[in-house]
Amino acid sequence: MLQSKPGWLQKAVKGVLLDITGVLYNSGQGLGQAIPGSINAVERLKSSGIPVKFCTNETQCTREKLVSKLNKLGFSLTLNEVHSPAPLAVAYIKEHKLRPYLLVHTEALGDYADVEKSESNCVVVGDAAEEFNYENMNRAFRVLLESDNPIILALGTGRYYKDSGELVLDNGPFIKALEYACDVKTVVLGKPATSYFDGAVKKLGVPAENVIMIGDDLIGDVGGAQSCGIRGVQVKTGKYRLQDEQHETIKADGRVKDLAEAAELILQFNTVTT
Amino acid sequence: MLQSKPGWLQKAVKGVLLDITGVLYNSGQGLGQAIPGSINAVERLKSSGIPVKFCTNETQCTREKLVSKLNKLGFSLTLNEVHSPAPLAVAYIKEHKLRPYLLVHTEALGDYADVEKSESNCVVVGDAAEEFNYENMNRAFRVLLESDNPIILALGTGRYYKDSGELVLDNGPFIKALEYACDVKTVVLGKPATSYFDGAVKKLGVPAENVIMIGDDLIGDVGGAQSCGIRGVQVKTGKYRLQDEQHETIKADGRVKDLAEAAELILQFNTVTT
Repeated sequence: MLQSKPGWLQKAVKGVLLDITGVLYNSGQGLGQAIPGSINAVERLKSSGIPVKFCTNETQCTREKLVSKLNKLGFSLTLNEVHSPAPLAVAYIKEHKLRPYLLVHTEALGDYADVEKSESNCVVVGDAAEEFNYENMNRAFRVLLESDNPIILALGTGRYYKDSGELVLDNGPFIKALEYACDVKTVVLGKPATSYFDGAVKKLGVPAENVIMIGDDLIGDVGGAQSCGIRGVQVKTGKYRLQDEQHETIKADGRVKDLAEAAELILQFNTVTT
Repeated sequence: MLQSKPGWLQKAVKGVLLDITGVLYNSGQGLGQAIPGSINAVERLKSSGIPVKFCTNETQCTREKLVSKLNKLGFSLTLNEVHSPAPLAVAYIKEHKLRPYLLVHTEALGDYADVEKSESNCVVVGDAAEEFNYENMNRAFRVLLESDNPIILALGTGRYYKDSGELVLDNGPFIKALEYACDVKTVVLGKPATSYFDGAVKKLGVPAENVIMIGDDLIGDVGGAQSCGIRGVQVKTGKYRLQDEQHETIKADGRVKDLAEAAELILQFNTVTT
């Protein structure tokens, strides 16, 4: 490689957070497709001894199913390496004694098996995809309208992502719809919430200033990470669009072709041995 | 009647604008149901010689079907007495040479029969009800994302309305969802747009200060009318909720039990003979 040390690697990297969808693989029919070079990049990063965690807002299935799917695609990762909003939602629900209506994907219902759901007084909004229909949106709306203290627990606030080669709506727009319909407080549990990234950094066990987040979402991944003092690097795979480079407020610390290039640069230029 | 002259009748009334859904009738299975006293109230207002127009954002069917439905319920009104956003949208589309993707109710497609719809570059959002599903929302999203000058033509921005006795989401929330998903300009053609009320007042042919708008929606009907110098009176039927009386910025000029009471007060206290 003839590249010189990029600016985003001037400070030592002691931990890496990797987004999953759009970085490791693109979702779609069946298992979806691994992004070329990503399987090997994950392998190399983990082998180098740098702690790696996987930070996702993907909630179209349970965490177990997601890990199993990624394993089948060839990725080496385990359940406890995945930092995902569903367990954070369950913890929040239990702590605040809430009873959620689950506007989530049918495949993800298992994440909430031991939560009380009768006489709902809050709404959990995950990536419900086809479940974002008029009937379910009305159910969620009425739960919020009738609750004394209406709360939306947002598993993410993404605008869109790539599925089967097409951009499709994420859960953010549907949360905005419910917010407009009734006065309601939204608690964001997934990216870009500060609490989410703080939790991920804690799992890595290194200071935030020595962590790099690699993602395809400028707002959820890069902006969220940066607001916690983590460097945010955007890959040009997944939902990346040229317009991201002109964003008014969020400037990525770095931009790379794909995860393979990010891993290559980290392994080549990072001076820390852990 | 022992009531004294209400404040909202201090100034002469020379024209009346009536909302339809929630004032004349409640929508629902079949034809829906006339609100008690409304058929007679419309009759009496029209017989008194005061010009009356019907101002609706209802776009679940063509205007012809709406008028036919109301006639069957017993209301005396004709097509040219109805001021509705669909013809305004068609005029806008033609003037700006747009090609819309129609996120509208299947029963309302007829309103756009002579509009070019191939290679869509804008989105019309009406009260699409069941058509607000994930697939159609994604289609609308992608039309906007791929358009050089993305525009949403909003047939209304209502938050919710009453259907078959239940509150259900109106088109406003779904417009907010699309706005959040992509940077887009929304042109509101229905209530509460100033242009909409200006058009209605023009049809009445009297000064705005002598017009009263009677509706169940505090924002769309009352607030919209007031921003054009029209008095806005809220009925306590349809989507009215007690919370409306505590709204931070919009204060109704008057509030009445229902259209029957509004008509009774107008006929009893209005001093103008036309």
